[in-house]
Amino acid sequence: MPTDNEQEAACHSGGDEHDGGRKSHHSDQMKANLMTRLNRIEGQVRGVKGMIEKDTYCDDVLNQIAAIQSALGSVGKLLLEGHMRSCVIERIQEGESAVIDELLVTINKLMK
Amino acid sequence: MPTDNEQEAACHSGGDEHDGGRKSHHSDQMKANLMTRLNRIEGQVRGVKGMIEKDTYCDDVLNQIAAIQSALGSVGKLLLEGHMRSCVIERIQEGESAVIDELLVTINKLMK
Amino acid sequence: MPTDNEQEAACHSGGDEHDGGRKSHHSDQMKANLMTRLNRIEGQVRGVKGMIEKDTYCDDVLNQIAAIQSALGSVGKLLLEGHMRSCVIERIQEGESAVIDELLVTINKLMK
Amino acid sequence: MPTDNEQEAACHSGGDEHDGGRKSHHSDQMKANLMTRLNRIEGQVRGVKGMIEKDTYCDDVLNQIAAIQSALGSVGKLLLEGHMRSCVIERIQEGESAVIDELLVTINKLMK
Repeated sequence: MPTDNEQEAACHSGGDEHDGGRKSHHSDQMKANLMTRLNRIEGQVRGVKGMIEKDTYCDDVLNQIAAIQSALGSVGKLLLEGHMRSCVIERIQEGESAVIDELLVTINKLMK
Repeated sequence: MPTDNEQEAACHSGGDEHDGGRKSHHSDQMKANLMTRLNRIEGQVRGVKGMIEKDTYCDDVLNQIAAIQSALGSVGKLLLEGHMRSCVIERIQEGESAVIDELLVTINKLMK
Repeated sequence: MPTDNEQEAACHSGGDEHDGGRKSHHSDQMKANLMTRLNRIEGQVRGVKGMIEKDTYCDDVLNQIAAIQSALGSVGKLLLEGHMRSCVIERIQEGESAVIDELLVTINKLMK
Repeated sequence: MPTDNEQEAACHSGGDEHDGGRKSHHSDQMKANLMTRLNRIEGQVRGVKGMIEKDTYCDDVLNQIAAIQSALGSVGKLLLEGHMRSCVIERIQEGESAVIDELLVTINKLMK
């Protein structure tokens, strides 16, 4: 059970959350990485709003949309990797294979 | 500034822009539609940042990422449709088939 | 209008086909290129059948599936490019903008 | 050769294969399902070759390509599900978490 060594994301069970207390616990480094990426994505979305308002040529806007899609995909991959390396492994080792059902649903959504 | 027929997006040539003056001109209705969608997407991205900060269970975050991807994809489809129904048609009718080269590059990026 | 110079794909109108006589006309070189790719894809699909029969490790089969997806995607891009450079341009120049409706439906299917 | 419990796919370790003896073992039902789908896909690919030879209108060919992509995607999802419900669970329970590295690489290829 990770105590101070939280370099990797980890899934917690316990607590009084309405979701049964399940939580992810990303390392500070991972959190900072994700926040930087999400801040940039938020800025890109605001940028697209500005482009629409200024009637920027659609092809340029479409290229910006494709860039955001790609940046979001990278965040998704980081999260998926963290999830699989922590929660999925932990829960399977605890015999809780329902984590696989849940994961398959999520992967199908991400693969669309 | 187009006056009467602004129902459809339209691509302008002319002006002193650094991009050769090429502009898109979406109808007010289309602009409002795109802005509403982009505001919602911006809110969703901010929501994901909050989820990361609160250590929300990764699978839930991943589902939210998939929802944003899908919302962005819809904005991309709207823009692509507007672009093809206006600029692409106009420029091809003016014999400027380079618009197709540009469009193929963009579609390839969106299809990744 | 192209007569002997059929280096590029071209869309024909006329004839007594049940589809209104619409046809594509790929250059011999393009046809050969597409056939080579499709023959390879057909072989890859047969290969996957053999892998399933011999109980090949799923991860290896999945990698082969991903390779076929990618090869099919390349055929799709070649066809889309040929289509846009010939039929789409020709039909728009003839004022038949319905080709865009049709193209948007197809691109949406390919982008899924 | 597994005897009774063959309902689910299973990953075998042992044997003298060059891949370290790792094998998948799909149930007869799963194998029949996959083979039916792959036979259909093989037929569809042959169909596209016929379409190219007969100069079928590109848009129709592109729709057929999209249909094959979708059918292949379904095979991929079935295999991924079988893989995760058997090999991935088994190997994680045996403490062999390298299966996750391998799976992440494969999912990334399938998500492209």
